[in-house]
Amino acid sequence: MQATLTPTFTAPPAVPFAAAASLAERYRAVRHFTEWICEPLVPEDYVIQSMPDVSPAKWHLAHTSWFFETFLLKPYFKGYREYHAQFSYLFNSYYVQVGERHCRPKRGLISRPTVSEVYQYRAFIDEHMLALIDTADEATRAAIAPLIEIGMHHEQQHQELMVTDIKHVLSINPLYPAYREQPVRPRQPVPAMQWVQVEGGLYEFGHVGEAFHFDNEEPRHQAFVRPFKLASRLVTNGEYLAFIEDGGYEQIPHWLSLGIATVQAQGWYAPEYWEKLDGRWQQFTLSGLRDVAPDEPVTHLSYFEADAYARWAGARLPTEFEWELAGRDLPRQGNFVEAANFHPVPLTGAEGGLQQMYGDVWEWTRSSYAPYPGYQPAPGALGEYNGKFMCNQYVLRGGSCATSQTHIRPTYRNFFPPDARWQFMGLRLAQDAG
Amino acid sequence: MQATLTPTFTAPPAVPFAAAASLAERYRAVRHFTEWICEPLVPEDYVIQSMPDVSPAKWHLAHTSWFFETFLLKPYFKGYREYHAQFSYLFNSYYVQVGERHCRPKRGLISRPTVSEVYQYRAFIDEHMLALIDTADEATRAAIAPLIEIGMHHEQQHQELMVTDIKHVLSINPLYPAYREQPVRPRQPVPAMQWVQVEGGLYEFGHVGEAFHFDNEEPRHQAFVRPFKLASRLVTNGEYLAFIEDGGYEQIPHWLSLGIATVQAQGWYAPEYWEKLDGRWQQFTLSGLRDVAPDEPVTHLSYFEADAYARWAGARLPTEFEWELAGRDLPRQGNFVEAANFHPVPLTGAEGGLQQMYGDVWEWTRSSYAPYPGYQPAPGALGEYNGKFMCNQYVLRGGSCATSQTHIRPTYRNFFPPDARWQFMGLRLAQDAG
Amino acid sequence: MQATLTPTFTAPPAVPFAAAASLAERYRAVRHFTEWICEPLVPEDYVIQSMPDVSPAKWHLAHTSWFFETFLLKPYFKGYREYHAQFSYLFNSYYVQVGERHCRPKRGLISRPTVSEVYQYRAFIDEHMLALIDTADEATRAAIAPLIEIGMHHEQQHQELMVTDIKHVLSINPLYPAYREQPVRPRQPVPAMQWVQVEGGLYEFGHVGEAFHFDNEEPRHQAFVRPFKLASRLVTNGEYLAFIEDGGYEQIPHWLSLGIATVQAQGWYAPEYWEKLDGRWQQFTLSGLRDVAPDEPVTHLSYFEADAYARWAGARLPTEFEWELAGRDLPRQGNFVEAANFHPVPLTGAEGGLQQMYGDVWEWTRSSYAPYPGYQPAPGALGEYNGKFMCNQYVLRGGSCATSQTHIRPTYRNFFPPDARWQFMGLRLAQDAG
Amino acid sequence: MQATLTPTFTAPPAVPFAAAASLAERYRAVRHFTEWICEPLVPEDYVIQSMPDVSPAKWHLAHTSWFFETFLLKPYFKGYREYHAQFSYLFNSYYVQVGERHCRPKRGLISRPTVSEVYQYRAFIDEHMLALIDTADEATRAAIAPLIEIGMHHEQQHQELMVTDIKHVLSINPLYPAYREQPVRPRQPVPAMQWVQVEGGLYEFGHVGEAFHFDNEEPRHQAFVRPFKLASRLVTNGEYLAFIEDGGYEQIPHWLSLGIATVQAQGWYAPEYWEKLDGRWQQFTLSGLRDVAPDEPVTHLSYFEADAYARWAGARLPTEFEWELAGRDLPRQGNFVEAANFHPVPLTGAEGGLQQMYGDVWEWTRSSYAPYPGYQPAPGALGEYNGKFMCNQYVLRGGSCATSQTHIRPTYRNFFPPDARWQFMGLRLAQDAG
Repeated sequence: MQATLTPTFTAPPAVPFAAAASLAERYRAVRHFTEWICEPLVPEDYVIQSMPDVSPAKWHLAHTSWFFETFLLKPYFKGYREYHAQFSYLFNSYYVQVGERHCRPKRGLISRPTVSEVYQYRAFIDEHMLALIDTADEATRAAIAPLIEIGMHHEQQHQELMVTDIKHVLSINPLYPAYREQPVRPRQPVPAMQWVQVEGGLYEFGHVGEAFHFDNEEPRHQAFVRPFKLASRLVTNGEYLAFIEDGGYEQIPHWLSLGIATVQAQGWYAPEYWEKLDGRWQQFTLSGLRDVAPDEPVTHLSYFEADAYARWAGARLPTEFEWELAGRDLPRQGNFVEAANFHPVPLTGAEGGLQQMYGDVWEWTRSSYAPYPGYQPAPGALGEYNGKFMCNQYVLRGGSCATSQTHIRPTYRNFFPPDARWQFMGLRLAQDAG
Repeated sequence: MQATLTPTFTAPPAVPFAAAASLAERYRAVRHFTEWICEPLVPEDYVIQSMPDVSPAKWHLAHTSWFFETFLLKPYFKGYREYHAQFSYLFNSYYVQVGERHCRPKRGLISRPTVSEVYQYRAFIDEHMLALIDTADEATRAAIAPLIEIGMHHEQQHQELMVTDIKHVLSINPLYPAYREQPVRPRQPVPAMQWVQVEGGLYEFGHVGEAFHFDNEEPRHQAFVRPFKLASRLVTNGEYLAFIEDGGYEQIPHWLSLGIATVQAQGWYAPEYWEKLDGRWQQFTLSGLRDVAPDEPVTHLSYFEADAYARWAGARLPTEFEWELAGRDLPRQGNFVEAANFHPVPLTGAEGGLQQMYGDVWEWTRSSYAPYPGYQPAPGALGEYNGKFMCNQYVLRGGSCATSQTHIRPTYRNFFPPDARWQFMGLRLAQDAG
Repeated sequence: MQATLTPTFTAPPAVPFAAAASLAERYRAVRHFTEWICEPLVPEDYVIQSMPDVSPAKWHLAHTSWFFETFLLKPYFKGYREYHAQFSYLFNSYYVQVGERHCRPKRGLISRPTVSEVYQYRAFIDEHMLALIDTADEATRAAIAPLIEIGMHHEQQHQELMVTDIKHVLSINPLYPAYREQPVRPRQPVPAMQWVQVEGGLYEFGHVGEAFHFDNEEPRHQAFVRPFKLASRLVTNGEYLAFIEDGGYEQIPHWLSLGIATVQAQGWYAPEYWEKLDGRWQQFTLSGLRDVAPDEPVTHLSYFEADAYARWAGARLPTEFEWELAGRDLPRQGNFVEAANFHPVPLTGAEGGLQQMYGDVWEWTRSSYAPYPGYQPAPGALGEYNGKFMCNQYVLRGGSCATSQTHIRPTYRNFFPPDARWQFMGLRLAQDAG
Repeated sequence: MQATLTPTFTAPPAVPFAAAASLAERYRAVRHFTEWICEPLVPEDYVIQSMPDVSPAKWHLAHTSWFFETFLLKPYFKGYREYHAQFSYLFNSYYVQVGERHCRPKRGLISRPTVSEVYQYRAFIDEHMLALIDTADEATRAAIAPLIEIGMHHEQQHQELMVTDIKHVLSINPLYPAYREQPVRPRQPVPAMQWVQVEGGLYEFGHVGEAFHFDNEEPRHQAFVRPFKLASRLVTNGEYLAFIEDGGYEQIPHWLSLGIATVQAQGWYAPEYWEKLDGRWQQFTLSGLRDVAPDEPVTHLSYFEADAYARWAGARLPTEFEWELAGRDLPRQGNFVEAANFHPVPLTGAEGGLQQMYGDVWEWTRSSYAPYPGYQPAPGALGEYNGKFMCNQYVLRGGSCATSQTHIRPTYRNFFPPDARWQFMGLRLAQDAG
């Protein structure tokens, strides 16, 4: 039988998503990046919804185009005619003010439009969007630029979801197909974890300035923080294995009450994608099935597992304010999706201070996702973006190996329910100081 | 946006599946017919499992090949090497004696092997099967011929399932894509239903003779039948509409206790695939969404609905023995899959006696699916075929517009749970006589 | 802590439910027997519904009274005023033609009316019923006598359910309280099982004559039976243990497909009420927790388990016609509820022929519960009694240790879904002959 | 039929639970109060668990006794012998460090021990507890006094649950039995709502001092609060009705995403216990079914409904710190359980400032239940009390008509999941200021 995947792929798009680039260049770069992510897929891969949280790649491709059609082309492109009457129904996600939606758990049951028809739809939207950008007068441009900005950041969020959704889809196939295969790295010792102390006090948090940000990062406001210590690096697979081997998943006192109930109901015994095969811990990665590497940051942990590990380790998770305070002056560098690793990588050559704050894995904080004091959602359908999810979710910070470097910020608040695991989620320990 | 389907398809395979043809010719014809059924599909259509009862077309293609690989090539083809180590796990259906199986409800979550890889697998199996048939010595031929016969009838069963499964998959798509579009027939009056009386007495039932049949049609045995009357034709959509409009789905006394519970739990108000849109009853067909035609036989009814309709109509369903007694001397002609209608067609020009006994729709009987007196399942894995399903299912007789004419017999016992609706199931009324 | 139950109870009511007794005497005897069954209960026991199939004892007490109120007092007692406006809603079971009903699975959530109020209701009904019987003129008497007869048999059915429901309620209490404690019997060898052969032929089945019977035993009709062999006695615990120890619950080929699915979904590994504690098989009985006695007939088996055991033993279950043919001329004697054993007892001193055909345990047959040819349900609400349950249930014959001797007949058809176990259900083997 | 409840009950226990009283007096008063709450119950009422969140009254009675047996008598009473070997299994709630527990949703399936046996158990525990208090030497007294304090507050929490659980149990009975019937109050106008402004700044929160408090009120810590406005009184039924009549439950933009999903899945259309009967809004109260009184505070709202109402009203819920800041200097007076109203009462004669801060209904805050900075759970089993529930719950403040006046504090943090409604939960509006 022939190999399923061709062995070589193109490199990530060369045109950077930089501030200097024009709006049209940046629009093209973002849209192209989405398609680059899909490069290794066969049509059958695009269709599958392997669990309710996952959307088929085809849906992501169409939904991100629907976004530009709905919020840009329909209101601003003169004489624009809707591409297809039913696409709004099929590819709306949750913007209830925009109309009825196809039921989310049924996204994997729709074979038509085909993948190639969806690419035609994208091309049609891009053609019109570039024409719109090109021909807009000053006033229109002022109106559409911030909306296009949202659309590009929205698309970047879906790029990250595509990577993690494809991982889930491939993972449940007993053939364990690889997405893009990376060579196995030689193992090396990880620098010892250090505690980095941060002063307490009354600080300001949240976004400041004109640069793009979501409404949940506002308003800038004061909060009091007690002195604390933050671990110099992420928790590794090797460290997490010690927790497992110590019976961590069976010892109830480590866990939140909801956490242990979830562990028992779901039969969890290790991070998602881990399996013990023939006595060896293996994990499914986007390079296929691999041995668990002890030097890599642990990932695909729920909040419950991150919290239980921290308690077992005599520590706790940081708050989102502690993370922001410690991380906001660090360079936004790390293992992002542009590096095409699609997996966290071991820390090497640490020269002191906080490492791995950006990229690799989203870091769970103990902060419930809540509105900042004085928060007001944006008006209209786009205002549905964040506020209505502020319940029973926890904040994660820092971005992951599936996040675009140009998408992340120190004030960026990602959020997921405490039982979510399919994103690249991990943790860094914290402790009270003084 | 372009049309999804090319407007013309090839005609059904010309080579008949006739007794006169050689084993190799018949093997080729059956296998080719399966692929002809798939002709209108795009790769995305092959992947989807729209409910647990449905299997993806890709799975059917692979499973029917796995059957020949497992029961013919592995035991009888000298030096045969398994095509792929994991396919037995992925494409076994329920033959537990053959090993572990991939979980049935997850058949729609497997993007690889791709459709094209599955066709390669089929080609490989066919090549080896034809070589096996070609080169087998006398003794081997005697051993394999009956197994190949089973394999071909097994494949015909899956052909029928492919038609009904594809119908279900396409039906849940809000775009209502057509499979193979047939012109709308002009409506005409349906001949009035007549009662055809049959004498009671002690009769023999079940298969007799050497021709192919399944083990559940044996042994031939005696049973006593009281005189009865059978309706001259199938119940039509027009007649069933009268039941609906009389509040049939709300009037509890018409229903079995389990039936009304199912109606209420599932929210049934009409046969499957019916919808009232803009005040008109429409039904999804393999030609797309169409008006409900009052002259067509009603189809996609559960046993519960067939039974309730019969009670409302002052009649009852026939037993499987009554059906067999009345139908066994009639010619096996009717609207089968070879006619490429993929839908029941109205009765025209009835010249007296029983009409539509074969083809169009499977006819529900009131007989619980049970072993005939003295029944013995075949030994080994192939003996798992029928006996273990003899519980909480009801027998249907006569074949449908998705059945091959060469597959049906007067003694043929189809069976489904009383809440199944996605097959082409309908009914004919019966009454006690004298 | 004090013992929960007083150690002595009264003997079963002395007045026999005999044909010679007057209607009033028989009415009183049946009603009193119900209360005798409740004698060991404390008020708290009356309230609980331990699973959806179980009804609280309080509900049974009230429902059987509601039956007489609804079908006798309201239509026939001049000037009768309903006892309580809401009782019809609370205590109707499934007679949909009589009006709305309280949701069955919520019967255990109703603390009021209290037990003592329900007994007051019973007393009120009895007083009026006896007055009605006493004062009815000829015509009224002719009308009410058959209805009272149904009411008494209906109450006897609920008496059996009360015994089995109370058993289930007490069984899930970790204190394992006894209902009425019987001394442990000394064990003795069970006579070896013999095959008793019965001639085949065309026979008549179903009820004949004027005596009371349910509509599902009619009409008397002919059916052809092939020669068969029936086991001389019931299968014992000892024999069933051999099946368990042979891995019977794990070997899929013994099982119907639905059966093994149920075994796996429910985690069954032995009959209901069996537990292996400290390496010994124990079973909960109405005498409390006891060792499994190998000489007792096995009970609390589903149809699936009875069927699998029979297949494992190289036999099969009898049909209901085989059972009726073999059993109809035997004396209706055995271990019934009047013996106050509340459990099957070992066979002793068998003198040849069929033993234990009546009493001890209901015997599963392989016959799906279906209408006899020509069956017509009675008109009106009482006609809802049987016909609407004729789907996905299997017939049991012979009565059990919880059945009244005066309730059973050779033509009596009990029926339950194939996964029911909480009744006293067991099996006797059969085989084809010649 | 006779009335179910005797019309008069004793007044609430006269001995106050005051600081001046001795430990033994206070112990006796708390324990007696529990039994006073049960006074109107019949044995059948004690058994029922009407939903998983509800525990039977019998279980509360036993569990609060088990608490003293486990944490006081076993470790400190010399020669103490456990009352019953199985009670620890049956009546442990969630203290996993203390051993296995009976499954929570099955608490309503246990008829034995009987109610009277549970009262015997209580009497036995009380006798030994009072002997322990009486005879303890100085050192023992120092050790046990804080544990008894916890036990008494624990019992007060269960007293509140008993009131709300009994309400739920009686509410699902179609007879709508009253618990303790109060006369209907004449309606009167409610004082208009005023906004009370509070200064922002850096404040201290949490418990300070030696008085009893739970670990979740600690440590005292600083937090920054922006200026805000708090409504002078609770939201009334009349105001909430305007929200309902404005289509509040159907307008998605008012709701959190999880909130509207819950509304739709549960079919909510009004607060719990409300029904529209014959065109009039009725609510089930502990006085039976009553008209919804527009002047009463609205209660039995989930967090989702409180949050949606606030958004509809152009306001928001306060944070727990805003509530504590505004309420901490107000007198702890209000409509508590000692008033024996068992229902919120209308506000009358408001003389300015914040009203109804204590008693009537628990007030939902927008604060997720989280550990205070520096929080450390108490060691051992009693440390399981609070910390492990700090996930996906929201804080409520102020106590209700089912809370003891001696149980509440300004720093008291109650918490429930956002879909809980069966407690006396209501809301007060807040707004940003300045």
